[in-house]
Amino acid sequence: MEMTNAIDFYFDFSSPYGYFAADAIEAEAARAGRPCRWVPILLGPAFKASGNQLLIEQPLKGAYSRHDWDRLARLTGIPYAFPDPFPVASVAAARVFWWQDASDGVAAKAFARAIFAAYFAHGRNIGDKAVVAAIADECGHDRAAALAAMDDPAWKAKCRDETEAAIGRGVFGSPFFIIDDEPFWGSDRLPMVRRWLETGGW
Amino acid sequence: MEMTNAIDFYFDFSSPYGYFAADAIEAEAARAGRPCRWVPILLGPAFKASGNQLLIEQPLKGAYSRHDWDRLARLTGIPYAFPDPFPVASVAAARVFWWQDASDGVAAKAFARAIFAAYFAHGRNIGDKAVVAAIADECGHDRAAALAAMDDPAWKAKCRDETEAAIGRGVFGSPFFIIDDEPFWGSDRLPMVRRWLETGGW
Repeated sequence: MEMTNAIDFYFDFSSPYGYFAADAIEAEAARAGRPCRWVPILLGPAFKASGNQLLIEQPLKGAYSRHDWDRLARLTGIPYAFPDPFPVASVAAARVFWWQDASDGVAAKAFARAIFAAYFAHGRNIGDKAVVAAIADECGHDRAAALAAMDDPAWKAKCRDETEAAIGRGVFGSPFFIIDDEPFWGSDRLPMVRRWLETGGW
Repeated sequence: MEMTNAIDFYFDFSSPYGYFAADAIEAEAARAGRPCRWVPILLGPAFKASGNQLLIEQPLKGAYSRHDWDRLARLTGIPYAFPDPFPVASVAAARVFWWQDASDGVAAKAFARAIFAAYFAHGRNIGDKAVVAAIADECGHDRAAALAAMDDPAWKAKCRDETEAAIGRGVFGSPFFIIDDEPFWGSDRLPMVRRWLETGGW
């Protein structure tokens, strides 16, 4: 059945809008009775393909975004403090995610939530391999195995392939949702996502 | 009273998202019992200040936007066909707007709606001064006076000043709403605008 296809949720672990959207898209998926596939990607290559730039580095837009993230946090009640450093490379966290996901998708999502919270709620530097390994450990994974996964060619390739596949589907930002090939960019689009799921599209 | 301040609605006449938002923000303002001040600006200088680029010229984002405009038109029922040429310079239309607005704000808004519809529903080239003058004429204004307004230093200056003032307030895209100094970017933010107006902010 078409209506049971997974919702693909693309994000970068270093994306505040990805963080804010993570719980919400899971709730929308549950509401619609669909699974939600989390796909951490690397915005660097996506930005290269699209000509996009980091929000925070853009005049006017950067200041607006910081204001908007604080405002979204107050609105949603999601714990949030602008992290320092920002942004950070999220490749280590993404590789550990894929390593976990291969054996246990539920554990991988729990780890992803822990990574998001570590960075955006607790200010831990998730660009640091040791920090990522510590978070994996806190989630019940083996620390040494997590560290090994970060340098394992298999997870390097998986991470690269998923990013390239995302770009091939038109993904250029975080968060980005694809529902039965229909693309939705941005956490702003959650109301439209809900309507699309409820109505089957228009 | 603070709550009766006007909602400032910034847009470029060549912006599809501005077109889609125009009726909706008026409805939100009416719902909140506030006036809505329409401020046509020129995205060129705003993009220069912010480093923003035309959506349509960006890889991936351009294709997404075209798809999204069609989808928004189907969702809202607003008449829309992607115009050709796109985009066009909207400076003539903006100057005529300001000329009219100085004497009759209601007539200026009616003209603005007519310009939007001419371009996005009927495919008329609003970058052409003769077309803008014809639309002014259809709205009951004097054609020769409209043509003169396009080259009048007073309306040139007004158009430039409003654009610069907008940039000074952080405006970098279209549509952009400012409510009691609170900025909201994009037609996606209309649900948040409604909540802000209903609650007085958070």
